[in-house]
Amino acid sequence: VNNLKSKVNFKRLKDTIDKSAEIGNIPVNGLKRLALSDEDKLMRDIFQVWMEEAGLEVRIDDFGNMYGKRPGKTDKPPVLVGSHLDTQPSGGRFDGILGVLTALEVVRTLNDNDIETMRPIEIVNFTNEEGARFEPPMMASGGLAGVFDREFIYSRKDRDGKKFGDELKRIGYQGKSENRIQDIYAFLELHIEQGPVLENENISIGAVEGIQGTNWLEITVTGESDHAGPTPMNLRKDALTAASQMIGIIEERASGKGVMATVGRLSLSPNVTNCIPGQVVFSLDIRHFDDYLRKEVLNEITEAIQRIADDREITVRIEDLWDSKTTIFNPKIVNLIEERAKELGYNVKKMPSGAGHDSKHMNELAPTAMIFVPSANGKSHDVSELTLDEDIENGANVLYEVVYQLANNEGDLV
Amino acid sequence: VNNLKSKVNFKRLKDTIDKSAEIGNIPVNGLKRLALSDEDKLMRDIFQVWMEEAGLEVRIDDFGNMYGKRPGKTDKPPVLVGSHLDTQPSGGRFDGILGVLTALEVVRTLNDNDIETMRPIEIVNFTNEEGARFEPPMMASGGLAGVFDREFIYSRKDRDGKKFGDELKRIGYQGKSENRIQDIYAFLELHIEQGPVLENENISIGAVEGIQGTNWLEITVTGESDHAGPTPMNLRKDALTAASQMIGIIEERASGKGVMATVGRLSLSPNVTNCIPGQVVFSLDIRHFDDYLRKEVLNEITEAIQRIADDREITVRIEDLWDSKTTIFNPKIVNLIEERAKELGYNVKKMPSGAGHDSKHMNELAPTAMIFVPSANGKSHDVSELTLDEDIENGANVLYEVVYQLANNEGDLV
Repeated sequence: VNNLKSKVNFKRLKDTIDKSAEIGNIPVNGLKRLALSDEDKLMRDIFQVWMEEAGLEVRIDDFGNMYGKRPGKTDKPPVLVGSHLDTQPSGGRFDGILGVLTALEVVRTLNDNDIETMRPIEIVNFTNEEGARFEPPMMASGGLAGVFDREFIYSRKDRDGKKFGDELKRIGYQGKSENRIQDIYAFLELHIEQGPVLENENISIGAVEGIQGTNWLEITVTGESDHAGPTPMNLRKDALTAASQMIGIIEERASGKGVMATVGRLSLSPNVTNCIPGQVVFSLDIRHFDDYLRKEVLNEITEAIQRIADDREITVRIEDLWDSKTTIFNPKIVNLIEERAKELGYNVKKMPSGAGHDSKHMNELAPTAMIFVPSANGKSHDVSELTLDEDIENGANVLYEVVYQLANNEGDLV
Repeated sequence: VNNLKSKVNFKRLKDTIDKSAEIGNIPVNGLKRLALSDEDKLMRDIFQVWMEEAGLEVRIDDFGNMYGKRPGKTDKPPVLVGSHLDTQPSGGRFDGILGVLTALEVVRTLNDNDIETMRPIEIVNFTNEEGARFEPPMMASGGLAGVFDREFIYSRKDRDGKKFGDELKRIGYQGKSENRIQDIYAFLELHIEQGPVLENENISIGAVEGIQGTNWLEITVTGESDHAGPTPMNLRKDALTAASQMIGIIEERASGKGVMATVGRLSLSPNVTNCIPGQVVFSLDIRHFDDYLRKEVLNEITEAIQRIADDREITVRIEDLWDSKTTIFNPKIVNLIEERAKELGYNVKKMPSGAGHDSKHMNELAPTAMIFVPSANGKSHDVSELTLDEDIENGANVLYEVVYQLANNEGDLV
């Protein structure tokens, strides 16, 4: 179809983001809007009003996912656009929120310009993407994709022992299972990058090709705890010096192969100044877009860890906690994002997502892709989270163009 | 003077140790007898009876130190012998206890054999050596030596806010300041090694030449916390990989120079599996008997730490928490211990103490030395603490001989 002549109304979009940023706000400029909390309910109530004001048909499914449908000229499978409105306990005002509110802005702009589309457009707010209150994250999109069943989801508890199912009912957002979206032509999600790559390369738009595969491991190094004073270096079985050597090898091997590896969590015992550490437990997070390379580096690292333990005559236990394959998004949509961004005159880069998103599960249900906008200093899940106005506006315009194209697309995407 | 023909009564000594091990006992074979607790009071009451039964003149000073005096043929300055009866919260049955009860056994054996000495002999139980309930450790010997004043000691609080002074009064062991021991000819302390050296070299007796100097430092490494997924390795400021490299250098430099260096305490933030650590704080404990070498290695290590931080473009703050010079014990007494042990047919080794002891403060008041007996597997401050019967008996016999020699010694030791 022809290119659009119209663009999104950035001032309106910014006002909408600012209103959202008042609900659950914490200093400075942060948000605490945990899934199914009172703040989440208030945000949902307001979002429902906004959808109705935009002429959308609102419905809620049994996971609390909120949909707003804009009819098309036909009843063909819709283009679904959105993300999530919940946040981390000390989160920012952008994260998934930008994906929901830019989707709303796309609809509003189509309305402003009396533009009809061939396919219906639906916007969506997924429940509990963050997993900060109820684990695991990406819960309700996972429910849609059949990764988690409803019994599992409803039984998840927060730290106070409150269940997801009870809290969903309490805030009045337990809808019907027949309201779940079924047949989807394409799913699109705009999101902040949560990393420094776009800012670093001075690029405005990321055309996200997929989500990196991830391994989570837990490594337990067991030596012997002794008094620091009287124990000569050569008679020690120090679990921390061993773990430090392992962390060094992890960094070296991963950097050499361009794989991302992070030891983010570490604890030692007895953790006393004058005691040689007897045990260290640490996490290992390994990510890469190429599953084969990720496995190769993972194997190299675990072999090196075992060798260090053997050399030091201490024991090591390596546990696999999680192994998630790489998600490959729909190349046609990724190309369309790239093409539209170029057309609009923005710098654009094809890139993988390092973090997980609802799109990971939606990719199982429909051709899917994501649009990234830059995160200042790469920060996210923090009150310092920031995406500049210009980047928001550019991202929203790309989303507008891509939704419009897809909603008028006849052909198969797969 | 002539050698003694008599030896200690090991069965009686063992019975006494076993009785002590019933007061505050915890599974398996451990002791919890915190300073000025009800258990400490009960142990003191029994120890007082034991001293009186041995014909000693008992007195208590204003720090709660308990003395039992065996008169000599003259009123010359006495030989003081002892250690402490308090324990760590999950401590063993030997530690300082062995030093007090072998001192008692020395007196009992002299009594058995109707042996008079030229100088008086005093045995002592120092209050709160462990510092486990009231910090700092070695408190009451430090009071005697003028390192801490009484106001400071009385005002120390435990975790429940109870003051040392109030608890001392409560258990009935607040004596008078004029009861503090004043003029001491020599101080002797038998103690478990708390390290693996004697056991490892199959040696029965350590003639302790002094206490290693110690530096305590706190090192704060500050990088940047980011999401583990989207942040490429080359854009990271990972505080934990930096700290790991520092710990590697510390181990390497210290081992190379025979200095002991321990990172025993470490914490990181945010300490989450998928977050790059933004900050790591760790302790550094460096010990050696040679103050000059210790300082040299300390300087090398801090320079290397700074260089690592500079190379990684992160910041590091190095704080000195404690700097304690090496304590050199009296060489004449150390030689006497070595000579007597050899005479008795035991393997003996001159060695430094890695850990602090009441002898550190007593060395300021009088010619001092210590006798070490082996710790099985080098363990101490743990319920698994163990010194074998034969080693206890050998140690007690050496103490007996050395006390006897010193108590009949006319000449100056310094």
